[in-house]
Amino acid sequence: MSPSGAVSLAVVGATGAVGQEMFSVLEQRRFPAGKVRAFASARSTGRTVAFNGTTLPVGELKADAFERDRFDIVLMSAGAKISREYAPRAVSAGAVVVDNSSAWRMDPGVPLVVPEVNAPDIRRHKGIIANPNCTAAILCVPLKPISDAFGLERIVVSTYQAVSGKGARAVAELEAQTRAWAAGQALPHNVWPYDMAFNVLAVDWKVAEDGTTEEEAKVMEETRKILGLPNLRISVTCVRVPVFRCHSESVNLQTRRKAAVAEVRRVLSGAPGVELLDDPRAGRFPRPKELAGSDPVYAGRIREDGSVENGLSLWVVGDQLRKGAALNAVQIAERLIQDGL
Amino acid sequence: MSPSGAVSLAVVGATGAVGQEMFSVLEQRRFPAGKVRAFASARSTGRTVAFNGTTLPVGELKADAFERDRFDIVLMSAGAKISREYAPRAVSAGAVVVDNSSAWRMDPGVPLVVPEVNAPDIRRHKGIIANPNCTAAILCVPLKPISDAFGLERIVVSTYQAVSGKGARAVAELEAQTRAWAAGQALPHNVWPYDMAFNVLAVDWKVAEDGTTEEEAKVMEETRKILGLPNLRISVTCVRVPVFRCHSESVNLQTRRKAAVAEVRRVLSGAPGVELLDDPRAGRFPRPKELAGSDPVYAGRIREDGSVENGLSLWVVGDQLRKGAALNAVQIAERLIQDGL
Repeated sequence: MSPSGAVSLAVVGATGAVGQEMFSVLEQRRFPAGKVRAFASARSTGRTVAFNGTTLPVGELKADAFERDRFDIVLMSAGAKISREYAPRAVSAGAVVVDNSSAWRMDPGVPLVVPEVNAPDIRRHKGIIANPNCTAAILCVPLKPISDAFGLERIVVSTYQAVSGKGARAVAELEAQTRAWAAGQALPHNVWPYDMAFNVLAVDWKVAEDGTTEEEAKVMEETRKILGLPNLRISVTCVRVPVFRCHSESVNLQTRRKAAVAEVRRVLSGAPGVELLDDPRAGRFPRPKELAGSDPVYAGRIREDGSVENGLSLWVVGDQLRKGAALNAVQIAERLIQDGL
Repeated sequence: MSPSGAVSLAVVGATGAVGQEMFSVLEQRRFPAGKVRAFASARSTGRTVAFNGTTLPVGELKADAFERDRFDIVLMSAGAKISREYAPRAVSAGAVVVDNSSAWRMDPGVPLVVPEVNAPDIRRHKGIIANPNCTAAILCVPLKPISDAFGLERIVVSTYQAVSGKGARAVAELEAQTRAWAAGQALPHNVWPYDMAFNVLAVDWKVAEDGTTEEEAKVMEETRKILGLPNLRISVTCVRVPVFRCHSESVNLQTRRKAAVAEVRRVLSGAPGVELLDDPRAGRFPRPKELAGSDPVYAGRIREDGSVENGLSLWVVGDQLRKGAALNAVQIAERLIQDGL
């Protein structure tokens, strides 16, 4: 940190959906940044990003970026390949990297952090801290207080994931498909070989030999790591829906101890990062479109599931670009500063 | 039946989404109908329906409709209130009623039938045979062969339900909302108080005191009745998505005996009414938009779930206006004829 206490910060992947959201989050949370630099691939140089009333030029990420310029914190969101190459360079040059890709998440030496859940893990970092998969991050926020209060026996999750989780091009394609539909024209297929408009895709990720998608594997293994429950029994089905922003998750739980609905509501209403929206008869339940752009993870439809001992169902919605990505990364950076990096 | 063997048939609710689909199914399946009459509420009289190259006038459903004219079979799809009033009248007048509403489904004296699952129950009818809730009907088609082969211990389902399940006005509103979005105008809200376009609604049905929706309760109790497993442990979360037609269901199963994926595939590929679409790496998995208008229930994404003993996950898609409603009703009527009514 500079003598003034201001943090020098680099954002890598500045022009992507998550990168842009990071600047918005940094600004809203009055992040104590001194020097701020924006990096992206050669394709994006020449572009600018808006930040704190100024316009930052986007620099090309070159091999010596972190040697030519010193940073306290590097927020990376440029994919696993870039992270594998550049995160170690940034660390060698003295920065702490908060990495949004999947490159380091399951590395036993790298903390995988949702601050509301496992902030103390940040202190174990050796230069890199991984930001989780968006669906896992959103899931863990309400699961943690439930786990602490009642214990977790088994979790079955089905997701309703927004297209922005697939990047800005996917958002543009859902828009373009929808406009084409409204105009009575053929739907464009550049991102998806199928229609995404008015459709549901139960496969929108790489599929492993056993039929599990990469996304499902990430959610399962990352949830175990974040919660610190390596043997947690969890089953996940990841599904893409024609929603622009905010992931929804239908969560079925079996707790260790009986979890009465009123108690679960009490536990969740006091939990960090969670907002209860649970009065469905009055229209109060989490809806992704209306919650886009907000920070909390919303929980609703909490009800007993009589089909199993200590069964519980709930519905969880979170903005996967905020809590699922940019907000979570900035929260980690804030903790790093509190802890003196 | 007439001496020629042709069946006299009435369709009540002829102008609704399911009623119209019934005429299309009757025509496609060359249903052996002689006299065919279409009925609807006073609001719809004067309208016509197309059937077998002719145009049928839509008559108003009046109290004496079934006394003035004799029918072998009455296909009813006009809501529970109309069914409660008119089904007994039709039965008194000598007809067998196949009723698509929820009015009679859980009546212990009324068979609730998915022909591929429990056709023999049809013979127990006392004049009324109930057609199940669409989500339950679609679910039961692949569940039955799995249940027979491996036994069912517990089922956890999350649905992705199309708006046509809510009726023609809902379809029109999703269209209107989407067109308004494309035109940059405010979205109309006549059917939903919320946006349905680009949104997901985890509550789109009446909610009971315990937080369960009416739809969820129907799927759970009707699935038990259709499968003949009154103690089946089942948990359902029903969700509306911006899809016009075809319900999708994420199904997590615990079977009694170990169900290896290859065996499940074998069991399902030979099962009546089921079509296997399960090669996700080749893009073969059930997608609702592309399967709209087709008869089978499609099953895919069959995979082991290691989070529980004998765990199994699959993805099921079916056209809720066809197998979930009109097709199933016509199949019941065909069985009635085979059995001599």
